[in-house]
Amino acid sequence: MKVLIIHAHPEPNSFCAALKSAAEEEFRNDGHEVRVSDLYAMRFNPVASSADFSDRVNPDYCVYALEQRHAVNTGTLSEDVQVELDKLLWCDLLVLNFPIFWFSTPAILKGWIDRVLVSGVVYGGKRFYDRGGLRGKRALVSVTLGGQEHMFGSRGIHGPLQEMLKHLLQGTLAYTGLQVHTPFIGWHVPYISSDDRLAILRAWRDRIRSLNGESTLPYPSLDDFDDNLVLSG
Amino acid sequence: MKVLIIHAHPEPNSFCAALKSAAEEEFRNDGHEVRVSDLYAMRFNPVASSADFSDRVNPDYCVYALEQRHAVNTGTLSEDVQVELDKLLWCDLLVLNFPIFWFSTPAILKGWIDRVLVSGVVYGGKRFYDRGGLRGKRALVSVTLGGQEHMFGSRGIHGPLQEMLKHLLQGTLAYTGLQVHTPFIGWHVPYISSDDRLAILRAWRDRIRSLNGESTLPYPSLDDFDDNLVLSG
Repeated sequence: MKVLIIHAHPEPNSFCAALKSAAEEEFRNDGHEVRVSDLYAMRFNPVASSADFSDRVNPDYCVYALEQRHAVNTGTLSEDVQVELDKLLWCDLLVLNFPIFWFSTPAILKGWIDRVLVSGVVYGGKRFYDRGGLRGKRALVSVTLGGQEHMFGSRGIHGPLQEMLKHLLQGTLAYTGLQVHTPFIGWHVPYISSDDRLAILRAWRDRIRSLNGESTLPYPSLDDFDDNLVLSG
Repeated sequence: MKVLIIHAHPEPNSFCAALKSAAEEEFRNDGHEVRVSDLYAMRFNPVASSADFSDRVNPDYCVYALEQRHAVNTGTLSEDVQVELDKLLWCDLLVLNFPIFWFSTPAILKGWIDRVLVSGVVYGGKRFYDRGGLRGKRALVSVTLGGQEHMFGSRGIHGPLQEMLKHLLQGTLAYTGLQVHTPFIGWHVPYISSDDRLAILRAWRDRIRSLNGESTLPYPSLDDFDDNLVLSG
């Protein structure tokens, strides 16, 4: 299996970085190929803009997705985007590893999503959800956060974390055709003991070793929807 | 009323920018003060990192929120952050105006959230939701997207857009104490006629004029939760 880990934490010595390193090691030990994009270390540019396109289909008015499709067709994607897109198309499993910032990804990772999930390759027309450009691949989100698990229960103040992350799990990962695993969540990380952190690392390594036997989360299938994308029947 | 509009679209002549300009005009015509942060025009830096702090509480290990609190206490917030924070504290109504990218904000706006919603001012400890640092102020999200409204109905393939935006509406805006208006949504914008776009602009102007009479969305109140932030009773 080919594994791409996208890691985005501002502190190189963070516990989140330890999760990244543990994942790298476990996947390699298990015989998989692993590539890592450490977005902060790469100083990845997260801003989708017309500067991404050297050969514009319309130099006067930038429709970002249309310029992406033109850049794909003419082989003129920005080099930093092309490199990441090649890694994404290479992998069988995409791992997004990050600290929760405002119930979502840090901006640098949102920008990787905005720029690398290229229209015309990853999605476009009716190629989304189970017909998306990344179908056949899988995704796993691993996060750290300050909150505690009981705050995200059915009676917890925030509601389930998976609902907060719907834009990412369904709207982004499942949308592109990826089969999405249940997220791995490192709760309350800034406030817990070293022993508790080591327990999270052990649980993470166990999770990685058993990943292939897991079923993934249910998301819409285009077969169930009519031409207006409304539920049939 | 003091209104701060945060606008984030890569194309200066976009319909989304027209929504921004219309809002500016309507609020001013109605006697309100308006300030606009056009994040792309400002080349706003969206990457939260240790480079934001000139005087570190811990130079060897960056916990971003702790450095934010220290920077607030020592008056050493990064200047671009301080300017935006001052605008945020000045306003009575925050308007976020942007195109939906992957069922969320463009990265440049996510970075404004990551960097400007400063710990120790906007939230911290038990100061969140209706005890958040921005309580007493209101927020309005206005977006454009390619999708059509029926794709986001109860039988639509994506489910309600407000659920996709829960991380923003609840997890970010309501979390900081803002009263959150129902979002204004410009559906299917890239594919509709000029007449239909003008109709959206008219509806937007009408919406702005009637905003003060609206009730806002319901979000958690800390009064209803116990010390573990689990629903009481």
